[in-house]
Amino acid sequence: MSVTEVEAAVIGAGTAGLVAVREILKVTDRTVLIQDGPMGTTCARVGCMPSKALIQTAEDYHRRGFLAAKGISGGEGLCVDGAAVLRHVRKLRDHFTEGMVEKTLGHGEKLIVGRARFLDAHRLEVGGRVIRAERIVLATGSRPIVPARWASLGEGVLTSDTVFELDRLPRSLAVIGLGVIGIELGQALGRLGVEVVGVARSGRIAGLSDPEVLASAMEIFSREFEIWSGHAAEVESAGDGRFTVIAGPHKKTVDAVLVSIGRRPNVDGLGLETLGAPLDEQGVPVFDPATLRVGSLPIFIAGDANGRDPILHEAWDDGRVAGYNAAREEAVCFHRRAPLKITFCDPQIVTAGRRFSEVKDLEIAIGQCRFADQGRAVIRDQNAGLLRVYAERGGGRLLGAEMAAPDGEHLGHLLAWAVQQGLTVFDMLRLPFYHPVIEEGLRSAVQAAASEVREKPRFSELAFCDESPLSSLS
Amino acid sequence: MSVTEVEAAVIGAGTAGLVAVREILKVTDRTVLIQDGPMGTTCARVGCMPSKALIQTAEDYHRRGFLAAKGISGGEGLCVDGAAVLRHVRKLRDHFTEGMVEKTLGHGEKLIVGRARFLDAHRLEVGGRVIRAERIVLATGSRPIVPARWASLGEGVLTSDTVFELDRLPRSLAVIGLGVIGIELGQALGRLGVEVVGVARSGRIAGLSDPEVLASAMEIFSREFEIWSGHAAEVESAGDGRFTVIAGPHKKTVDAVLVSIGRRPNVDGLGLETLGAPLDEQGVPVFDPATLRVGSLPIFIAGDANGRDPILHEAWDDGRVAGYNAAREEAVCFHRRAPLKITFCDPQIVTAGRRFSEVKDLEIAIGQCRFADQGRAVIRDQNAGLLRVYAERGGGRLLGAEMAAPDGEHLGHLLAWAVQQGLTVFDMLRLPFYHPVIEEGLRSAVQAAASEVREKPRFSELAFCDESPLSSLS
Repeated sequence: MSVTEVEAAVIGAGTAGLVAVREILKVTDRTVLIQDGPMGTTCARVGCMPSKALIQTAEDYHRRGFLAAKGISGGEGLCVDGAAVLRHVRKLRDHFTEGMVEKTLGHGEKLIVGRARFLDAHRLEVGGRVIRAERIVLATGSRPIVPARWASLGEGVLTSDTVFELDRLPRSLAVIGLGVIGIELGQALGRLGVEVVGVARSGRIAGLSDPEVLASAMEIFSREFEIWSGHAAEVESAGDGRFTVIAGPHKKTVDAVLVSIGRRPNVDGLGLETLGAPLDEQGVPVFDPATLRVGSLPIFIAGDANGRDPILHEAWDDGRVAGYNAAREEAVCFHRRAPLKITFCDPQIVTAGRRFSEVKDLEIAIGQCRFADQGRAVIRDQNAGLLRVYAERGGGRLLGAEMAAPDGEHLGHLLAWAVQQGLTVFDMLRLPFYHPVIEEGLRSAVQAAASEVREKPRFSELAFCDESPLSSLS
Repeated sequence: MSVTEVEAAVIGAGTAGLVAVREILKVTDRTVLIQDGPMGTTCARVGCMPSKALIQTAEDYHRRGFLAAKGISGGEGLCVDGAAVLRHVRKLRDHFTEGMVEKTLGHGEKLIVGRARFLDAHRLEVGGRVIRAERIVLATGSRPIVPARWASLGEGVLTSDTVFELDRLPRSLAVIGLGVIGIELGQALGRLGVEVVGVARSGRIAGLSDPEVLASAMEIFSREFEIWSGHAAEVESAGDGRFTVIAGPHKKTVDAVLVSIGRRPNVDGLGLETLGAPLDEQGVPVFDPATLRVGSLPIFIAGDANGRDPILHEAWDDGRVAGYNAAREEAVCFHRRAPLKITFCDPQIVTAGRRFSEVKDLEIAIGQCRFADQGRAVIRDQNAGLLRVYAERGGGRLLGAEMAAPDGEHLGHLLAWAVQQGLTVFDMLRLPFYHPVIEEGLRSAVQAAASEVREKPRFSELAFCDESPLSSLS
């Protein structure tokens, strides 16, 4: 077999892999990018982008319910053409994917199409060709988990990989698993007229760990579609291409099933077992999160493949860290950004900084805001939700927040930025909050947390000129 | 005449006055709140709140134009009932105003209804009663400027005080002055079907000082309604209650005229001339912005009355500073928040931190983002606009930004918070930006500015663990 010798090989042309190879190319031209399967990244093809296009369409249709009270008639005459909606989603999806495919193909002869298999820690076999690399980046992504017994039931068993390929919307849909994908797509399809039932085995929605926020979210989403909580689902064929879904005492026959119970790192069939590295319960080689290096091997694992949160900006950073290290003799470790996770449902579910589950056993001050009476939220007909912020009870340093809130994506950025910078709730209250904006709800929650903090500065909201910047008007 | 002696008197029960009296009550019960004219605050009665209600309605109607491409039919059947729209706006307005009126009336016998006049620096006359106060807060607000020759032309000459009281929408409207109020109401009414022409004498929109951002805004808004730029307007009666508006070579007859050429502090008719304090060109007594104290008099001037930006959160802070000082022997000075000004048009016009006009003569790095190809902006059909950020060219400290941008209200908060904290563009790039969000456009602009900064850290976006937090992956 022919052997190609390179400094660094990258397996997978998704977000992490494309970024890794870009990082490597800053240092050396001696690299290859190996890609198997459809190009265009998970995000653009089957993830963030088509889901946002569907959600925007559903939101635009959903707003018709608020028109009559505002003096606009005719909202009841709006009509969804499901096939056209799906074509619109695919058109936008194709637009975004095109750029990623071009970027991939732009690597010319450095791009090798085929499935890579480890021969040893330095050698890969791809389509009868051997690549010998000083260092290897493993960025093979992830795929939806579907139990084999469900997958065999027919085409109506959908995942995020297939739902956007539908010709028309199903009349009824069971969404199994209300994580990020399940709640986003379930709500959007429900708003577009699909009769949706959601199954949340764990009783959780989109990873919320704060029981108060979860209760608020559960109440809000239950008003839009039926949710079966706390029972595992089973799916059976009901004939005629339909399905019976059973969960505890619940049973329903539906046209289609969206399986959204999680994603599995694509680490099987790569010959990873030849490396001798210990694997975790997902089959992912154990790696150092600060360098992304697998043990003392010359292998770095980036993006969804490493089984941490499948979030684009984290995959991007993973690609940079893995690519940086794969291009150099010595692996260095990197600080990471403050955690931020956004589910684009309505209200948006967001966790920023540390979750409630991570701080609940510490001595914390909690502040909250419900949006029911918040001016702008009322004006926008988006006044459902709950935001809770967590701060150190001692000195008031912000630790994190969970919410189901209007404008959650924006509040999440403010909160994650504040957490990363180590701001206290008092520091935050000295920053500008405009009027009338949803951010005023954040201020209310921060004020409430501040009132619980033990060591308050004498003044907390406007700073005296002649005192330290940390003392201000309470 | 009976004389009431108090520690502190507050003139004006608007936002600044209500906050000031609350601050005073923390220290002493010996205070009065004097109010003339309608209660309920400018913001709730005729400002932020009714305008946002109108804008939300216009936005909901405007979205019909994006439905067909998404697979939703019937958008062309939506119909505006102008009278019902205005009733909706007033209903929400009344809801918000009610709370403010209750708060005002809650002061019981401390509330004195009537017009105050200074007898001297310590004494006020109100309806035949004399109030003697150790210190006085002047928080009398502002009112729209209307040239007398226009005011006498009839009821169709509107201001923000009267436009929400209309029974029905005019068929055609000239908006004279495209500041915050003119551009917000002009665009909203235009979207609701009113034929609008806007006159921008100065050629500026909503206070933008960056010529590039202004050009982008002018182009965007000119697509929605006719804008006459660079000429002063004159208004004449056209008979039948209609008006002819002339500006340079332009001339048009319209049903109504919205005069939005600015607001004048309510400092006339108060006997301020008896105090001997120097007055500025608006008739406002010269005051110290850090204490709000008028010269060495026992008088503090807060909110719109002091002629600075008529912005709610600034009026609120003014009230706290003035109230704090009016309750004490010694006036202390306060730091203020980083500037933030938001115009709720679409795209939103925002200035955060220092304006272009304030930094253009410094050595600055400018970074910008147009939203035309930005993923989420495209999905939301809101991909028009321009964001420009200004940073010190030497070390990259963020100075400010101007924009006409989707989600500008949220970008503005991130930017103003970053400015107030003295962050550099490199600090900002180490903070999380989710995907797909409009904040990614902010990141692009910040990255572009960072590339112009002279002294770059070797790494700028992800920090090494083993280096100072200021060096990171470029």
